[in-house]
Amino acid sequence: MIVIQGSVRISPDKMDQVREAARAMIAATRAEDGCIAYTFAEDVLEPGLIHIIERWRDQAAITAHGKTPHMAAFGAALAAIKPHGLKVCAYDAAEERVLMGG
Amino acid sequence: MIVIQGSVRISPDKMDQVREAARAMIAATRAEDGCIAYTFAEDVLEPGLIHIIERWRDQAAITAHGKTPHMAAFGAALAAIKPHGLKVCAYDAAEERVLMGG
Repeated sequence: MIVIQGSVRISPDKMDQVREAARAMIAATRAEDGCIAYTFAEDVLEPGLIHIIERWRDQAAITAHGKTPHMAAFGAALAAIKPHGLKVCAYDAAEERVLMGG
Repeated sequence: MIVIQGSVRISPDKMDQVREAARAMIAATRAEDGCIAYTFAEDVLEPGLIHIIERWRDQAAITAHGKTPHMAAFGAALAAIKPHGLKVCAYDAAEERVLMGG
């Protein structure tokens, strides 16, 4: 499994535009082969700081995700919002350990 | 490094209470030895769904974190908000690969 954590900043008053653009892309991404989890979330303390939270079966699935029409459309919509400070990192994970809950 | 991803649900109208309770706890946690990243963020599509995003040097640092007074205080504050569906998972990560940005 590959775990992804990332973030990007937008103007807080653009959050509704991001929500609108992200809704269809997130649904389409979650339906992709190899997608285990895919979520965008706004920092509880820093409005406009969006966290990107993903888990994928393997790198091939991530590479295929990057070439989908829904990501191209979302990328174009996001560019219009002028995001900055994008950083996304991947971590190869051998196994998942449940720390709390179930 | 250990990467953590988790989530918990609260009533969306309690988000401001969570923000208030989390602010000091997050600051204190980020100052802990071995804490690389520690963030709470609200799902952009599901109000009240809080994502927990963490990275730690090792399990010893995570264990020590669980015993801090700020986590005890935050746990008590959160219990009053009646969260549900808590699940937190850990992933051992050999290395970090930058996929986008820097």
